[in-house]
Amino acid sequence: MKSTMMVAELSINDIFARAARLFPQSEVVSLLPDKSLRRQDYAQITVRARALAHALRALGVEKGDRVATLCWNHHAHLECYFGIPLAGAVMHTLNLRLSPAEIGWIAGHAQDKVLVVDNVLLPLYRQVSQHHGFRHVIVFPFGEAQLGEAQLGENVLDYERLIAPHLGRDFTPVPHDENDPIALCYTSGTTGRPKGVAYSHRSTVLHSLVGALPENWGLKGSDKVFAVTPMFHANCWGVPYGALMCGASLVFPGQHLHAEDLLDLMVREQPTLALGVPTIWLSLLQAMEASPGRWSLPPGMRSLVGGAAVPESLIRAFAAKGVTIVQGWGMTETSPLASTSYIKPEFQNAGEDEIFRRKALAGVPVTLVDLRIVGDAGELPWDGKSVGEVQVRGPFVSGTYHEVEPDPDKHTADGWLRTGDVGSVDAAGYLRITDRTKDLIKSGGEWISSVDLENALMAHPAIAEAAVIAVPHEKWTERPVACVVFKKGHEATPEMLNRHLAASFARWQLPDRYEVLEAIPRTSTGKFWKLRLREMFPA
Amino acid sequence: MKSTMMVAELSINDIFARAARLFPQSEVVSLLPDKSLRRQDYAQITVRARALAHALRALGVEKGDRVATLCWNHHAHLECYFGIPLAGAVMHTLNLRLSPAEIGWIAGHAQDKVLVVDNVLLPLYRQVSQHHGFRHVIVFPFGEAQLGEAQLGENVLDYERLIAPHLGRDFTPVPHDENDPIALCYTSGTTGRPKGVAYSHRSTVLHSLVGALPENWGLKGSDKVFAVTPMFHANCWGVPYGALMCGASLVFPGQHLHAEDLLDLMVREQPTLALGVPTIWLSLLQAMEASPGRWSLPPGMRSLVGGAAVPESLIRAFAAKGVTIVQGWGMTETSPLASTSYIKPEFQNAGEDEIFRRKALAGVPVTLVDLRIVGDAGELPWDGKSVGEVQVRGPFVSGTYHEVEPDPDKHTADGWLRTGDVGSVDAAGYLRITDRTKDLIKSGGEWISSVDLENALMAHPAIAEAAVIAVPHEKWTERPVACVVFKKGHEATPEMLNRHLAASFARWQLPDRYEVLEAIPRTSTGKFWKLRLREMFPA
Repeated sequence: MKSTMMVAELSINDIFARAARLFPQSEVVSLLPDKSLRRQDYAQITVRARALAHALRALGVEKGDRVATLCWNHHAHLECYFGIPLAGAVMHTLNLRLSPAEIGWIAGHAQDKVLVVDNVLLPLYRQVSQHHGFRHVIVFPFGEAQLGEAQLGENVLDYERLIAPHLGRDFTPVPHDENDPIALCYTSGTTGRPKGVAYSHRSTVLHSLVGALPENWGLKGSDKVFAVTPMFHANCWGVPYGALMCGASLVFPGQHLHAEDLLDLMVREQPTLALGVPTIWLSLLQAMEASPGRWSLPPGMRSLVGGAAVPESLIRAFAAKGVTIVQGWGMTETSPLASTSYIKPEFQNAGEDEIFRRKALAGVPVTLVDLRIVGDAGELPWDGKSVGEVQVRGPFVSGTYHEVEPDPDKHTADGWLRTGDVGSVDAAGYLRITDRTKDLIKSGGEWISSVDLENALMAHPAIAEAAVIAVPHEKWTERPVACVVFKKGHEATPEMLNRHLAASFARWQLPDRYEVLEAIPRTSTGKFWKLRLREMFPA
Repeated sequence: MKSTMMVAELSINDIFARAARLFPQSEVVSLLPDKSLRRQDYAQITVRARALAHALRALGVEKGDRVATLCWNHHAHLECYFGIPLAGAVMHTLNLRLSPAEIGWIAGHAQDKVLVVDNVLLPLYRQVSQHHGFRHVIVFPFGEAQLGEAQLGENVLDYERLIAPHLGRDFTPVPHDENDPIALCYTSGTTGRPKGVAYSHRSTVLHSLVGALPENWGLKGSDKVFAVTPMFHANCWGVPYGALMCGASLVFPGQHLHAEDLLDLMVREQPTLALGVPTIWLSLLQAMEASPGRWSLPPGMRSLVGGAAVPESLIRAFAAKGVTIVQGWGMTETSPLASTSYIKPEFQNAGEDEIFRRKALAGVPVTLVDLRIVGDAGELPWDGKSVGEVQVRGPFVSGTYHEVEPDPDKHTADGWLRTGDVGSVDAAGYLRITDRTKDLIKSGGEWISSVDLENALMAHPAIAEAAVIAVPHEKWTERPVACVVFKKGHEATPEMLNRHLAASFARWQLPDRYEVLEAIPRTSTGKFWKLRLREMFPA
């Protein structure tokens, strides 16, 4: 027999139409380059996104064409999130932290036809344009332009002038299948060339629904979401789609990611949910410690932190300030939410230590994501001890890369994504990431977890940040070297630090060397840049 | 270009596997016929559901076969919700409130092959069996059997004995497509024969995700859900699937739906969320008023009430007792959640009166449900005034009926469900149901809303329940007659009641006649049985 249910395709155009109709009053607040605020509501944003769709069609953009963005987090970037798919095209968010050559290579590989770029990023665009030619370049007047149009060529258009004739016009979305792509994002490519992940209407709607569930973002119309995560990282972790689905307001920091600016904006806008990477959240703590009493975090604010392991000390420090952190684990290939460290009912009365310990784990797989741990001999039990590669699958997990041949190093023959993370799952279903495959330290035939060492070091009162790398060693193959940043006015000797670590690590696992830095270099995604550290501190 | 996302079908078997793996400790509490409690956890329930799937396959059940249930709300019925689809079959919940002939007709129309029936319902089964022969009848020992097996025939099996050999065995779900059916439910058939709605894996997973969102059920693993809604009504409003998805515990009242029993169970189990129809919720208030101090509702409990209009007075009365009611509107054809009366952010500071007024509306369409109001001349604006037929569409809305020819009275040519409800939507997106098409009263060429009259009457201090029906009238076509039940120790004259109504109704809209009853007759779904009232009180 057959189901009697309607054939109704999932579409983010429906999420958009819902937002326009039901939530016209929800706000979108953007911090401009001059640090003034631009306040808009969904009514304006949706009118502008429809106008953008008209303008793109008028420029000759066709179904499936790639329209790239090279933008900070702000309202016009949000307009691209919806206006580009409305027009049937695929939004390709370019990572402005990469080198111009890399950005150009990625734009070329994706065959980007049109670019939407912030005027403050025109110097970067000019360098990128040496490597890839866009047919049209649409310049959004975000702040003071740093290059005149005359210097840029004839194919350059002004965003506001382009959309102006279409403001207020309705737009009928270009017909599509639920599996058609809406957005393209290249992974940062720690090994080999960057690779593109293309999200579909279906995957994005499903990810938005799962993300909005009470134990993940817990998103309501009354929420105000502070999206610190760059909009070119896994679509800002998918939260702009979720926000429009639920009618939540959004606050974007623009290009101002310094702790002081972020804290000022939090105090001013009082978000209820904030999303970002642990390194930025660490910088917030440091700024608050350096200027006690200058800022108070919004009372009761929730925070989803991910993109790298979240140290327990960070979670505790925010809890002491009234902010609940939930850790999310995932990656560009998983849309990105694959697990969250919410506290399951059986641990809610387990005592503070156990609760914080669990919050510092990568968490429980979210609905619709299937997860397994695979060792050399196959799938491993969920016993909290068996460590192997973490593999996932599900309707918002990428099964291939855009225009790349299938690679058994990336996907298994039975259809799972090999995440490159190594970890274990305990009997309660909590994933613990031990390391990235490539960040494990192999010493004397045994493995040392750089993540465990980093977390333990960051719990030391003198240490603000710590990154542990493997350096080649003649006898032991590899040995750990710890790169540390001290808190202002604090320091500690290697002996003191090793004594601190000895409480939880075997003697042979302790770092051989400590390197004291002013700051740990970061990748374009705000993670500790271990590749750079390995170059700085060879054997 | 193509999306790179995995082809991963939605399946409630995955929800089941997730529950078994991640939430073994979540509870399922069933009130037995002798009023003792049976406590089980998901670990037991999932083992038993897998065993049921084995047993059904061993009986010869094949993919797409219908396995019917004739059961109260309890753990074995929950096992059927998952065990039957695991086996590739379709669970068909039979409505035990219907007449034996009707149940038999429905079972025959659905070609039900196997029946799972509570032993306390064997007398009913024996009558049903005169109208439809099941190949196998599996009797669940819920309470004291009221008929011996010997009296029932050779094809009768004991549920516990049947599953016992398979307990602890894994079960590989029968392969399926996400659009394959998992459950079948016949509408009560107020006009014409009952009609079957067949839910799919896809529709059920999507409905569970939408239902679990913070503004609908707001479901977390720490929730304890009191499922008073019969499991044969739109799959218990879909909440058992949502509960297993999130790991929430479930409390089932078995056959005990009297207010005293429900209140005793609430006090004992302290649910955090309770689902039921307004008539039963009215009876809870009456019982609490009759025995002041005997029960206190669980503090902070949320409640989703639907299936019929929820009077504002009911919502206020529960709010005064610390329980928040959200009204849900929908029907068997909509899985059933189509809109919920949550308070949008712009009304959260609008004052108590405005908030309660909005809570008494049918609410805002849920995500993935598209809604329009259609009048004689086409789609009507969302202005709060334009009244027409409510039409919906979406991936968990039924687009046909099982083995019934397409009917333009049920579905429009452009693919919308004609709900049979009449109403308007205001600019903020709140649906107000004025009436069922067939319950509107046409007097002198104008329409009178029976729902509005009922709500106003139920706000009168002397009235416990009120149902307003249309009776034929020579001059005016139809006139309203109000059937009322007074609160214990209260009464009021028709003049007093009409004076009360005159504050909000025109003179010609007031009831011509009041009929005082001991209780208002109810349909099998617990709604006021207006058909019966019209028979009782002809012109």
